[in-house]
Amino acid sequence: MGGLTLWTYDWVPEGAPPRGFVRDLRLRWACEEAGLAYEVRTVPFEGRATNHLARQPFGQVPFLDDAGLQIFESGAGLLHLARKSEALMPPDSTGQAETLQWTIAALNSIEMVSVPWWFLTISGAADNPLTGWMGQRLGQLEEVLAARDWLAAGHFTVADLLMADVLRVPQVRAFGERPASEAYVARLTDRPAFRKAQADQMRLFAAADAARAGNAAG
Amino acid sequence: MGGLTLWTYDWVPEGAPPRGFVRDLRLRWACEEAGLAYEVRTVPFEGRATNHLARQPFGQVPFLDDAGLQIFESGAGLLHLARKSEALMPPDSTGQAETLQWTIAALNSIEMVSVPWWFLTISGAADNPLTGWMGQRLGQLEEVLAARDWLAAGHFTVADLLMADVLRVPQVRAFGERPASEAYVARLTDRPAFRKAQADQMRLFAAADAARAGNAAG
Repeated sequence: MGGLTLWTYDWVPEGAPPRGFVRDLRLRWACEEAGLAYEVRTVPFEGRATNHLARQPFGQVPFLDDAGLQIFESGAGLLHLARKSEALMPPDSTGQAETLQWTIAALNSIEMVSVPWWFLTISGAADNPLTGWMGQRLGQLEEVLAARDWLAAGHFTVADLLMADVLRVPQVRAFGERPASEAYVARLTDRPAFRKAQADQMRLFAAADAARAGNAAG
Repeated sequence: MGGLTLWTYDWVPEGAPPRGFVRDLRLRWACEEAGLAYEVRTVPFEGRATNHLARQPFGQVPFLDDAGLQIFESGAGLLHLARKSEALMPPDSTGQAETLQWTIAALNSIEMVSVPWWFLTISGAADNPLTGWMGQRLGQLEEVLAARDWLAAGHFTVADLLMADVLRVPQVRAFGERPASEAYVARLTDRPAFRKAQADQMRLFAAADAARAGNAAG
């Protein structure tokens, strides 16, 4: 328990949430940006509704341990990690306020609309009743991203990491013509720290596939 | 700009969001709990989609000024205010981590479901497609609240303030049989700081009614 441990599922199917989008990626990405050493551990995907409620009362991942201190909710984990490195959040009070407000905006003004919209979309809703709200919020964000490269503090922060992760969901990315938002997502997901984090997540689940295939054959 | 200023609308109709639920109440309530002096200022409700985008890019309220430092998003404002007073967040790192994770859980695990569910409900959706998800999350939260009185740190924090504000929406409060959650909401909204904050918000909008009636008569 001496260092930083990120917890995720031991395996996920190819479906929803798709591989490469499980939210431990947010914490992996932040650690890679900041050069923070971390270990990854897993809880079983099977039985996830009840098998780790003592650590995450909604049965989700990720959660983290930081030298014995325990935190769930990816947004909370990001704000916790952000205090450790200026690569994630500047030290001045104005920069911190901007980072905090845009991190919360990603969670509560964009993702509060985009996740339910996505859920209804993949559920096959013919006339998705959240499409109007979705268009309004993504349009407002497009105006912001058309005017500047970074959400907070004039440079990359954990707020950009989170907003890009919210926006990069394929159905969200394909929603409407939003060139500034598309350029933003492309630029953020081309960062080496993102690419390493995503490759590591994919490798974990691929190894679990191989182990399952071995068990099935054995 | 020397002190704390909370910004809200100059008036809202009786409709949605109903009076007594506009989110400046979250910040008023926090200030009342902590004994922080604050001033309330307003932007026009009419034209809100575009008239204050420079201060709040989604056209919402509240936002706050703290001695010149500006923050939008009620969740970000709460976490900012929480650093000012142990009445809102304990000073130790474990207590802060618990407060942070439950504040984010209120925004991103509960409100991310309850607000879209509420929106579809008041839109008249006959068979609300988010009802299953809503029941799952509120059921998980009921288990937590059945086991303890406070979400974080063993006493009242800004996480309880926010979760209670999310849960007290009438349609959410009426969702299913959840006795621990109901007792929690009743207890939190009976706090003197909440009652003063809500009365002050209602008084502002009532005064605006009177001014509008005077203008109409004059």
